[in-house]
Amino acid sequence: MNTSPPVPDPPDLSRGFLSRLAQLVGPENLRTDPADCWAYGYDNSRLHALPQAVVFATDADQIAGLVRLCAEAGVALVARGRGTGTTGATVPDRGGIVLSFERMQRIIRIAPEDRLAVVEPGVINEQLQDAIGALGFFWPPDPTSAASCTIGGNLAYNSAGPRAVKYGTPRENTLGLVAVDGRGERLRTGVLTTKGVVGYDLTRLIIGSEGTLALITEATLKLTPRPETKQTLRAAYADIHAAAAAVSAIMAQPIVPCALELMDAAAIDMVQRYAGLDLPHGVGALLMIEVDGPLACIDQASRAVSAAARNNGLLELRRAESREEVAALWKTRKALSPALRHIAPKKINEDVVVPVSQMGALIEGLEQLSRERGVRIVNFGHAGNGNIHVNLLTDPDDAEAFAQATACLDAVFQLVLELGGTLSGEHGVGIAKRDFVARELDAATLTLMADLKRQFDPKGILNPGKGFPQNSLP
Amino acid sequence: MNTSPPVPDPPDLSRGFLSRLAQLVGPENLRTDPADCWAYGYDNSRLHALPQAVVFATDADQIAGLVRLCAEAGVALVARGRGTGTTGATVPDRGGIVLSFERMQRIIRIAPEDRLAVVEPGVINEQLQDAIGALGFFWPPDPTSAASCTIGGNLAYNSAGPRAVKYGTPRENTLGLVAVDGRGERLRTGVLTTKGVVGYDLTRLIIGSEGTLALITEATLKLTPRPETKQTLRAAYADIHAAAAAVSAIMAQPIVPCALELMDAAAIDMVQRYAGLDLPHGVGALLMIEVDGPLACIDQASRAVSAAARNNGLLELRRAESREEVAALWKTRKALSPALRHIAPKKINEDVVVPVSQMGALIEGLEQLSRERGVRIVNFGHAGNGNIHVNLLTDPDDAEAFAQATACLDAVFQLVLELGGTLSGEHGVGIAKRDFVARELDAATLTLMADLKRQFDPKGILNPGKGFPQNSLP
Repeated sequence: MNTSPPVPDPPDLSRGFLSRLAQLVGPENLRTDPADCWAYGYDNSRLHALPQAVVFATDADQIAGLVRLCAEAGVALVARGRGTGTTGATVPDRGGIVLSFERMQRIIRIAPEDRLAVVEPGVINEQLQDAIGALGFFWPPDPTSAASCTIGGNLAYNSAGPRAVKYGTPRENTLGLVAVDGRGERLRTGVLTTKGVVGYDLTRLIIGSEGTLALITEATLKLTPRPETKQTLRAAYADIHAAAAAVSAIMAQPIVPCALELMDAAAIDMVQRYAGLDLPHGVGALLMIEVDGPLACIDQASRAVSAAARNNGLLELRRAESREEVAALWKTRKALSPALRHIAPKKINEDVVVPVSQMGALIEGLEQLSRERGVRIVNFGHAGNGNIHVNLLTDPDDAEAFAQATACLDAVFQLVLELGGTLSGEHGVGIAKRDFVARELDAATLTLMADLKRQFDPKGILNPGKGFPQNSLP
Repeated sequence: MNTSPPVPDPPDLSRGFLSRLAQLVGPENLRTDPADCWAYGYDNSRLHALPQAVVFATDADQIAGLVRLCAEAGVALVARGRGTGTTGATVPDRGGIVLSFERMQRIIRIAPEDRLAVVEPGVINEQLQDAIGALGFFWPPDPTSAASCTIGGNLAYNSAGPRAVKYGTPRENTLGLVAVDGRGERLRTGVLTTKGVVGYDLTRLIIGSEGTLALITEATLKLTPRPETKQTLRAAYADIHAAAAAVSAIMAQPIVPCALELMDAAAIDMVQRYAGLDLPHGVGALLMIEVDGPLACIDQASRAVSAAARNNGLLELRRAESREEVAALWKTRKALSPALRHIAPKKINEDVVVPVSQMGALIEGLEQLSRERGVRIVNFGHAGNGNIHVNLLTDPDDAEAFAQATACLDAVFQLVLELGGTLSGEHGVGIAKRDFVARELDAATLTLMADLKRQFDPKGILNPGKGFPQNSLP
């Protein structure tokens, strides 16, 4: 997908640099053998580049020293959680050092009385959820990869997941950060409280910046009390327009669901072929809806959402009455990922966003593109946010098919922007989408972003070339 | 309160500049007569400085032209809504032009199906609430001055109000901005959707920056559906520690109140002297609690919050059963502002924040300071956020008393920082608190903020000298 000119091979790291590096971090935290480094050069995007060295950070002082060393030597430094990203943002395509946070996974403190937790960036999302769950809390961001992705990675991409429709993204669930910028300066951003307006909001600026502005060494997360219970509904519609209208109606009434997931006709069709499913005849779109709240109110809440979900295009609305029925209703949605992996293991998976009112137009446009371009497109996603995972089923090993899919992707992005949308809701830009960014952001805004980057990282060593058009950042 | 060295008088605006200015904005949008300009030189902080000219902006192109003209001539440009701020942020203490947004008050569009409204910055908060209220929505930020303050001002300070405890501040309720930076460049930040991660988050960076980075010319606001109903509770406690423990307990269970307001013993005492009130004997702290939600669940919700509010220090918990009873319960709190105005019309009113668990320690520390320094201190505020309005009752016209209060304020800020808090939750820094900012933010972070400011505003014309220590920003 990356049409940028190839970047020349980086010069070898000098002996002097490597020996200072080993002295700084300790030989036990350094790998330079290509065989050891190989596994730190990929993420979930199928892109790969060999790091020249891998450093396992253990504390912020070490990271500050490492940054200063790299800045002095002009060596690129790429932060990495567990490599579950899908855009190549952690792939060291300009060589240099991959800084792995896997040894910084302490939960420093949990303060239930202040609804906050302070963590190191390498903590796995699920580890955090387990620790705070025991105290009656959760941290809303829940990417599909929660069992293996890190909090630092969630913050770097602003990764959200289905619960964002009710509880927001990391930007709405983080109080403050400690971070090291590209000059090796330690920054302390934000506050310990849910309000605070002293100074500029660097917390949100660093969140979502894909490791290009600063390396997060500690995060103060806002915790949310766990709701008592949850109810699951499945609504089947004749077509995508009826489903999109239902999403608008659901989001316009005051009971916000904690999940509002969409599958389009192509996704349903694929799953039905793969696994026999109990769906009404003529279904053209499916919504999975979850409502949470106090036990005594949950029926009322699910009735209110059900009422909003009803329109002329509704074919069937089912509510799970038991744990087994919950599993049965989710079966279609859960069958989707294995089906996709089975049919197109190397599909292109995007995560565009459009205003909720434009979801019908988006899916219709995607169907038309699919017909015109001969590329099978399967769509599902977080409908309450208008965040749709557009899957182009293709095989990168078939050059002709892949070129067709890539051209089609270009048209998909064009369509999304015409509908007032954005190219990424939670996967970020990385390498995969950087050549498209200038279509969404205007030149003045892009230039300013490059200017801001330069203040954090004057030598341009922090994840160089990621997130922005190749020629726009230092 | 401002102990900075006096700034020299600005040079008079040249004839050439004024004639270009008149040509650009039209004579009907320009005032230069000091008598006309006088009223645009104050805000609600008691600070005043005469602007050299006042411009009434009518559109973004005009503002871009104005910024370029000022940048070229090195003339300061201070954005102003309706002057309801309390920190002097809109007071042109270095002279120059006040840019009033009172003629940019169009609601450009309301899209209920996408839960958003696009507005000009001069729209009054209450006007917006009326327009979207008719469609079943509200915009959560609701400062006390909602009837007269502007959306642009709310964004400039990140002003929130009581509902923030459940619904967040402007940063959590704004999707995107159009703004003109200090070079006259038009920036478009954010998206039309609740998710979006392309580029850096300039939206939140500009929100809360007090007009020092860019002039907001249009804002896309996230709307929230109005809850069906609301219930009001009043909990009286023996002392502040019992009330603070109740706040922690309330915030740790899943029903988040839509208001959780505190009054301390000094505030209750003052109101009781001013107006006979129906409060239990020995009351040392009061919580006003509001819970909103669907009609069918509201009793359950208020029971859950009531259970959390109960502890050994609770003296009385009352729930309003009618509109009259709501008014009766709120009477104490509503009597506070007139009582304060009556007793100390020129009080120092701060809006510090501490972690909820530290509220007891804060109030106790303030009581001790009050005794030691002989300054009467009355506290109330948004307890769910730990956001306390600390009122030092003094008379600025009595030099000795005022010096005593100012010294005491210094100790108040010290206490807040020792408790892990922040100097401002929603009023901002402006002129009033700028000399204290360096105690909260470290030198590296402050230097970076100055560097970022320079990218937006290389000539330093946008609200110069506000929000930061005098010598730290260009």
